[in-house]
Amino acid sequence: MKNQAYRMTMLYDFYGDLLTKRQKEFYDLYYNDDLSLAEIAENYDITRQGVRDIIVRAEKTLEDIEEKTGLIKRYHRTRATTATLRSLCDQLQSLNDSRLRDSEVSDLCSKLYSAIDDLGRD
Amino acid sequence: MKNQAYRMTMLYDFYGDLLTKRQKEFYDLYYNDDLSLAEIAENYDITRQGVRDIIVRAEKTLEDIEEKTGLIKRYHRTRATTATLRSLCDQLQSLNDSRLRDSEVSDLCSKLYSAIDDLGRD
Repeated sequence: MKNQAYRMTMLYDFYGDLLTKRQKEFYDLYYNDDLSLAEIAENYDITRQGVRDIIVRAEKTLEDIEEKTGLIKRYHRTRATTATLRSLCDQLQSLNDSRLRDSEVSDLCSKLYSAIDDLGRD
Repeated sequence: MKNQAYRMTMLYDFYGDLLTKRQKEFYDLYYNDDLSLAEIAENYDITRQGVRDIIVRAEKTLEDIEEKTGLIKRYHRTRATTATLRSLCDQLQSLNDSRLRDSEVSDLCSKLYSAIDDLGRD
């Protein structure tokens, strides 16, 4: 469970709204607010095992959705490509600064950076 | 239903694997193989209304998932940004062809196009 916190937070960000209300509550408290199973159990007056079962089921639901849609995998690929684009744009800009000194290239660089930033927001 | 075929096909491509086996079958026959409700009904020996109910429920499931995750909306934004990037790269390339004639710019253009193509594949 918590040893995969980053992955679990990402799954929750993508697909969390597909969980039941109770699953969402517990998942959120456990992963985002970092409460322990025992603390959640005490707050809701149920057993620690009961809390655990709900969170494990929620994790399984989220993992199943990702396995079937692959949308997080796609997101990671887009992120990697965005980094590549930014690096190429950096190279173009430094080439222009050091040697070409062309205002049209400079203008295109700005527009490229702006589009790359848009990608990063998604 | 079929007046939204493009949208429905897109929803199916993204989230189709989250439907039940029966929903998938009917959805696929109706939207992808373009069978009529009556034809599907005859093949499966159930009523036309029965087929309709299953497809309508499947559509609602897919729409709900998109409403909760917004992943298709995100996909469309990425597509639009990819088109912008391609257009900027075209401008850089024609600037280089017509005026700069710089081999490093040409090389960077190729690499930018290649990264932009990667985005288009997602």
